[in-house]
Amino acid sequence: MVNPLVVVALGGNALLRKGDPGTFEFQLENARRTARQLVKSIMDGYRIVITHGNGPQIGAILIQQEYASKAVPPMPLHACGAMSQGLIGYMIQQALISELKKMGLRVPVATVITQVLVNPMDEAFKNPTKYIGPYYTEDEAKKLIGKRGWIMKPDPRGGWRRVVPSPEPIEPVEIEVVRKLVDSGCIVIACGGGGVPVVEEDGSLKGVDAVIDKDLASERLATMLRADILLILTDVKYVMLNYGTPDQKPLRKISVEEAKKYLERGEFPMGSMGPKVLAAIRFIENGGKIAAIGHLYECNDVLRGLSGTVIYGFGQNKRTVI
Amino acid sequence: MVNPLVVVALGGNALLRKGDPGTFEFQLENARRTARQLVKSIMDGYRIVITHGNGPQIGAILIQQEYASKAVPPMPLHACGAMSQGLIGYMIQQALISELKKMGLRVPVATVITQVLVNPMDEAFKNPTKYIGPYYTEDEAKKLIGKRGWIMKPDPRGGWRRVVPSPEPIEPVEIEVVRKLVDSGCIVIACGGGGVPVVEEDGSLKGVDAVIDKDLASERLATMLRADILLILTDVKYVMLNYGTPDQKPLRKISVEEAKKYLERGEFPMGSMGPKVLAAIRFIENGGKIAAIGHLYECNDVLRGLSGTVIYGFGQNKRTVI
Repeated sequence: MVNPLVVVALGGNALLRKGDPGTFEFQLENARRTARQLVKSIMDGYRIVITHGNGPQIGAILIQQEYASKAVPPMPLHACGAMSQGLIGYMIQQALISELKKMGLRVPVATVITQVLVNPMDEAFKNPTKYIGPYYTEDEAKKLIGKRGWIMKPDPRGGWRRVVPSPEPIEPVEIEVVRKLVDSGCIVIACGGGGVPVVEEDGSLKGVDAVIDKDLASERLATMLRADILLILTDVKYVMLNYGTPDQKPLRKISVEEAKKYLERGEFPMGSMGPKVLAAIRFIENGGKIAAIGHLYECNDVLRGLSGTVIYGFGQNKRTVI
Repeated sequence: MVNPLVVVALGGNALLRKGDPGTFEFQLENARRTARQLVKSIMDGYRIVITHGNGPQIGAILIQQEYASKAVPPMPLHACGAMSQGLIGYMIQQALISELKKMGLRVPVATVITQVLVNPMDEAFKNPTKYIGPYYTEDEAKKLIGKRGWIMKPDPRGGWRRVVPSPEPIEPVEIEVVRKLVDSGCIVIACGGGGVPVVEEDGSLKGVDAVIDKDLASERLATMLRADILLILTDVKYVMLNYGTPDQKPLRKISVEEAKKYLERGEFPMGSMGPKVLAAIRFIENGGKIAAIGHLYECNDVLRGLSGTVIYGFGQNKRTVI
């Protein structure tokens, strides 16, 4: 029997939480803690593909582009995405290789720079909603609108910021590469930050300034790899109903139908839990066996069915252990 | 018969030459021109692994780290190396996929973030010689020595700059990953910028602030992959004797013994042609069949034996076509 394949989507807390110092050393320390969790699952016999967010890291890269823009040409957002994949992949692969070695394991680890195809006609391009990069005053913002052709809006959190579209991921361009690596026994880090968004134009690939949700991109990857499990790790232990109210109620196991019902009635805000539940629903509806959402530090308990929220499809509801 | 495997080391001119505008669009345009060359060789039946320099790109990234250092923590040099691999790999893979598509070819292309092991006892660590990053005044430089612990020296080209060691590459940490991808028919981009230098410390990998010569790293990769050919592409058509004098003489085919003799008598400066010839010599002495050095835009002619300098080993001197 082939060991089960898990696509593990690491949340921002795998490397940096809000307010953390963004130094390399701090991030690497967190990467090592995350790697220790993942190595336990590898020792339990799971084959894994890792995806990750890139919010704080690309935020820093965008600030650096701006501050130095008089000295060196700033790279476009999509190219900054590729830089963040290199940086974060490096940290995770270095940490994983080291932690695997400690356990006497020699499994090749690969970070694959991943482009993700999007549709240039995606509705999102008509209505950019995703705030990115540094905060500006209204005056500065208006200058940048003229100079860079950016769309800028007042951020509810204060100041003006650039907004970009968040289109639907269609498929990772490098899916074959990831598949070949998985098939040959490698641990793969891919689709970092949701992947670098690209469109097809006259038969060529072209990067676009947009942001792809990393959980939705992870679903595409998991589905196309025919992974057994999509495991979305974040900073809460369970998906909750009435989250943040005195009546909040953790969900342990729900069917895909229940998940859809809750999502439709607005239980999960689109800025946080929404895309995770949506990714889980899509994975199951596209033929995946089990999706689970849980806390990063309980990764193994989530895989063992001891923690986290499991979203299962038809015929899977009897399973207690993933 | 298996198609011959070529490790192609792209020189800086593959993306940016000195004085070029460093915009993304400009680099991508050059990447596409380079990709068109490589696609011809792929259509001629060669399997290829691509390595590349990162001088201008990491130079820009280092400037960005400094300019924004009060707003976001600067990443260390080795992490900047990983960022540059992501950026450059993205440009090359996007260009290659597009150019392959034009020719009706669907070959998977993968950029692999590559660490390269170096020896912490390497003599280079005692005597850093490689200038990197922005130019400073003497006063600024002396502050940075205290603040960052950097070694800074006056650059003969003017101003003060940071100097880092350039240790010998031992082996790419991700060699197995590259091998598996090559074996499964992928085109691989690896060892960008010579690779991210790492040392082993208490069984863990640790990034070090150093720069590995990309041609010497390419030799390690080519030798460990048992590649048939190491092809070093640059901005001159031939290795020359008496280079830059009225007596300069292009070399067409030389034995590894001749190459060693010329290198030892100082024909090839270590800042330019030296490491390329040294990499070629090592490749042949480590069992490689043929090494060639030539112009980027004549890549296919070099592979056909019509241009460039061929360095051959014992028993190979009769070959006229690579």
